[in-house]
Amino acid sequence: MAKAAISPTREQDYPEWYQQVIKAADLADNSPVRGCMVIKPWGYGIWELMQKDLDRRFKETGHENAYFPLLIPLRFLEKEAQHVEGFAKECAVVTHHRLRAQDGKLIPDGKLDEPYIIRPTSETIIGEMYANWVQSYRDLPILINQWANVMRWEMRTRIFLRTSEFLWQEGHTVHETQAEAEEETKKMLGVYETFAKDVLAIPVFSGEKTSDERFPGAVNTYSIEAMMQDGKALQAGTSHFLGQNFSKASEIKFQDRDGNEQYAWTTSWGVSTRLVGALIMSHSDDNGLVLPPAVAPKQIVIVPIYRDESRDQVLAAVEKLKVELEKKNFRGESLRVRIDDRDLRGGEKNWEHIKKGVPLKVEIGPKDLEKGHVCVVRRDDAELKKCFISQEAFVSGVESELEDIQHSLYERALKFRDENTRDVSSLEELKAFFKREVGFVRVFWCEEAIGHAVCDEFKITPRCIIGGGQGKKCVFTGQPATAQVLFARSY
Amino acid sequence: MAKAAISPTREQDYPEWYQQVIKAADLADNSPVRGCMVIKPWGYGIWELMQKDLDRRFKETGHENAYFPLLIPLRFLEKEAQHVEGFAKECAVVTHHRLRAQDGKLIPDGKLDEPYIIRPTSETIIGEMYANWVQSYRDLPILINQWANVMRWEMRTRIFLRTSEFLWQEGHTVHETQAEAEEETKKMLGVYETFAKDVLAIPVFSGEKTSDERFPGAVNTYSIEAMMQDGKALQAGTSHFLGQNFSKASEIKFQDRDGNEQYAWTTSWGVSTRLVGALIMSHSDDNGLVLPPAVAPKQIVIVPIYRDESRDQVLAAVEKLKVELEKKNFRGESLRVRIDDRDLRGGEKNWEHIKKGVPLKVEIGPKDLEKGHVCVVRRDDAELKKCFISQEAFVSGVESELEDIQHSLYERALKFRDENTRDVSSLEELKAFFKREVGFVRVFWCEEAIGHAVCDEFKITPRCIIGGGQGKKCVFTGQPATAQVLFARSY
Repeated sequence: MAKAAISPTREQDYPEWYQQVIKAADLADNSPVRGCMVIKPWGYGIWELMQKDLDRRFKETGHENAYFPLLIPLRFLEKEAQHVEGFAKECAVVTHHRLRAQDGKLIPDGKLDEPYIIRPTSETIIGEMYANWVQSYRDLPILINQWANVMRWEMRTRIFLRTSEFLWQEGHTVHETQAEAEEETKKMLGVYETFAKDVLAIPVFSGEKTSDERFPGAVNTYSIEAMMQDGKALQAGTSHFLGQNFSKASEIKFQDRDGNEQYAWTTSWGVSTRLVGALIMSHSDDNGLVLPPAVAPKQIVIVPIYRDESRDQVLAAVEKLKVELEKKNFRGESLRVRIDDRDLRGGEKNWEHIKKGVPLKVEIGPKDLEKGHVCVVRRDDAELKKCFISQEAFVSGVESELEDIQHSLYERALKFRDENTRDVSSLEELKAFFKREVGFVRVFWCEEAIGHAVCDEFKITPRCIIGGGQGKKCVFTGQPATAQVLFARSY
Repeated sequence: MAKAAISPTREQDYPEWYQQVIKAADLADNSPVRGCMVIKPWGYGIWELMQKDLDRRFKETGHENAYFPLLIPLRFLEKEAQHVEGFAKECAVVTHHRLRAQDGKLIPDGKLDEPYIIRPTSETIIGEMYANWVQSYRDLPILINQWANVMRWEMRTRIFLRTSEFLWQEGHTVHETQAEAEEETKKMLGVYETFAKDVLAIPVFSGEKTSDERFPGAVNTYSIEAMMQDGKALQAGTSHFLGQNFSKASEIKFQDRDGNEQYAWTTSWGVSTRLVGALIMSHSDDNGLVLPPAVAPKQIVIVPIYRDESRDQVLAAVEKLKVELEKKNFRGESLRVRIDDRDLRGGEKNWEHIKKGVPLKVEIGPKDLEKGHVCVVRRDDAELKKCFISQEAFVSGVESELEDIQHSLYERALKFRDENTRDVSSLEELKAFFKREVGFVRVFWCEEAIGHAVCDEFKITPRCIIGGGQGKKCVFTGQPATAQVLFARSY
C-alpha cells in the first residue's frame, strides 16, 4: 500500500487528520476574521455542486428562491421567547453605521437607535414579511427557500463543521393546516436523506429529535444523522415543524375558507457548508480527500507524460481523449475533465490529484499510445492500483466506472456505519460499549431519561428517534419506553 | 391600445412608475430593515438567470468561485488611504458579539476588542488572503470570483438601484505583470458589455471613467453605461485596474522569474442586483414589466379557458402543449413554460402575466381546440395584439419567435438610445440640450474640465471616455481635448 500522504493518519489523530486533509486538498483556509473560514475554489466547487443538485430538488418539490435582509432588528428577535434564548447568546451585533478617523485610527461612529444582529437564521425577519404577504387561504402555501450566509459567534470553531459564518439554505414555508405543514417538514427531511445517500454517498439515520434537542421555537425538529469514520455522529440537516409559534410571534394570520381568521402553520429546514465536512469525514483516507463523482469538481484528471520529442503527440492524444470523455455523461451532465499538463515533477502532480480526491486519474505516455491503452487509477481504491486498459474500453466504460465509484463509496460507508451501530438493551451494555468503542447505539427510551448522568459521563447525546417504543422498557429509567433512540457522541 | 395597467405612466411620473412596475410584477418589497429590500421569487428568478449566464462566462474565461468572510477588521480598511476615504463613511459596524436582556429589552453585550465592518466590497480582506497564497510567479495568475452580499449604509435608497444591502459578484485577480492585469480588466469589461447586449438586450457605452469617478484605490476604472427610458444613465458594471495599490497595502508579493521580489498587479470587477433595475427601466412600458426571454423565469404562460363541460379536454390539451414546448430550446436550455389554471377571473390572470412581463402568452379554449389554433400575445407588443395561429405553426416557430422578441427589445432600446444621444461641440449647445432634453451627449473634453460649474448646474456627470480627443478642443475649457466623453444625468 502507498505511503500515507496525510500526516497524522486517521488512527493517529483523527481531528488533526481532518485539518490536514482540508489543507492538502486546498479546500479552505482559516481567515484573520475570528472563527470565519475562506472557502477556496476546490472546496467551493464541491459546495456549488451540492447547491445545484439541492436547488433542483427544492424546485421539483414546488419551492422558489428569494432573498431576505442580512440584518435583523432586535425587536423581531424578542418576539419568540425560546428563539431569543437560543440565538441571542452568540451573535454579531451592528451598532453603528459609519467610521471616523481619530488619532490615525478608525472608530465606530453614527450610533444606531436600534441595533441589528446579523442573521443567525431568518425565521423572525422572514416571518415579518410573510405577515404582510398572507391575507387569505388563497395566498397559501408559501414555499420559499433562501441561499444565504448566516453568522453565529461560535467559541470553538472547526473549518466546515462549526464556523462563525457559514453558507446554507433555509427553506421557510407557510401552510393553511397543521397536517400540510407536518407533511412539508417530513418531505424536506426526505429530500435531505435522499440527497445524502444518492449524491454525497452518505447513509444517514433520519428521525425526530428528542425534545431537549429541538430547534429553539420549534414544535418538532427532525434531523439526518451521519456516522463519521471516528464513529461520531454528525447532524447533517434539519427540518422543523414550527407549529403556530412563529406565526403567532409574527402575526401571520389569514382568512380561512369559512371566513375566520386563523394563525398559519410554518416550517423551516436547512443544510449548510457543514455538509462539506461530513463528506470529508465520510470517505477520505490516509492519502487525503476521496470524492464521490457526483460532487467532484473534476471527475477525471488526465496527466500527459512525455519527453520533448513525444510532447506534441502525447498532448494531441490527451486533448482528443478529453473531448471524447466530455461527450459522456454522469447523471445527465457532461463529464468534468481536466488535463494537467503543468510543468511540475510527476510525483508532485500525482499526489496533488490524490490528495484532492479526483475520482479517476488517467496517465498517458508515448508507450501507452503505442499500445493503445491508458493507465487508470481509481481514487476510492485504498491501494491506488494502476490498471492498464485499452483507451476504447476506458471511454466506453467510463460512465459505469464512475457510477461504480459512487456506489462503492456508499456501500463502504454503509458497511462501516452498520458495523459500528449496536442494539443495546441495558444501561450496563450501553456503558460497556461507550467505554471501549465508538459508534451508534440504538436503545429504547422514555422522555424521563433526558439529561441522564450517563450521557454526561460518556459525552453522548440522543441523536434522533428512529422507531417506536411499544412494549419495551427505557434503558435508562426502567419506565415504559416511548421510542427507540439513536445515541452517539457527536460533532 | 390597452389601458395602461401601471399608474402613473412613465410620462406622468417616471420614478413612481418604476416603483409601481416592481410592485405590480411582484419583484421585490421594502423591508423593515433600513434601506434593505426583500427580493421576491419573480425578481430573484431574474437574478438567478443573470447569475447563471454570467457564471458560465466567468468560468469560460478561466475564473473559479470562492468565498471570503463577510466581516472585515478595521485595520485592513486602514491600509489603503483612498479606499478608506471611499468606504468608511457609510458602513455597518459590528461592535458586540452577544445580546443580554435588561428591563425586558435586548441590549448589546460582549464588546469586541476590534470592531468589524460588514464588507462594502472585499479588496482588503481578499488581498490579505492572497498575500498568504502568493509566493512565486508560479502561483499566478489568481482568477477568483465571489458571489456575495455586500452592505453600504445608503441614505437615499431605491429598490434594486441603490439599497444598503445588495447582491453581487466581485472578481478579484492577481497577475504577474501590469499588461496582464490591464488585459484582464478590459476582458471583463467586454464580458459585461456582451452580457448586457446579448442577455439583457441592453445596449451600453463602455469605456474608462474619468479620474474623478474612479473606484477608491483604483488606477483606472472602466464601466458600462446604459440609457434608461427617462434618458438618464445607469452605470451597470465596473472593472478596475488596481495597479499595485492594493498589493502594496496587503503585501501581495512574489518572486519573479529572475528571482526578484515584486508587488503583484491586481484587478477587481463587479455587477450587482442593480442590473435588475436596469432591465426594468430599459424595456418596461405603461403596462408593466417587459422581459427579454433570456432572463424571463417563465418565457411562456399557457392559460386554459374553459367551462365545466370542456375542462378536461382543455386541460389535457394545454398539458400536451406544455410538453411539446419544453422540448424546444432557447439558447441551449429547455423553454420555461407555465400553465396557469388557477381559479381566478380571466381578466385578473391576464393582467398579472402582462404586468410580470412574461414574453409570450398563449390562450386555449374549446373553440381554439376545434379550430386547431392558439391565441398568442407577445408582451413586447405595446398594443398586446392577439394573434391566432395554428398550434403546429406556433410550436414549430416558437424558438425563432422568442429570438425575435429578444432581438426586437435590443433594437428598440438601441434606437431609443441613439435617438437620445447627441454630439455637442460647444458649451452653449450642451446647455441648450440639457435645458430642454434628456439623454446622453458626446463631447470633447480635457481633465481640466473636472468639476465644471455647468455639470453642477445641470446635474450631469462624465459617464465614461468613449474615444480620443486628438486635434479637438475641450468644450468646457477651450484647451486641447484629451478625450471624447459621454455626459448625462445618472442614477
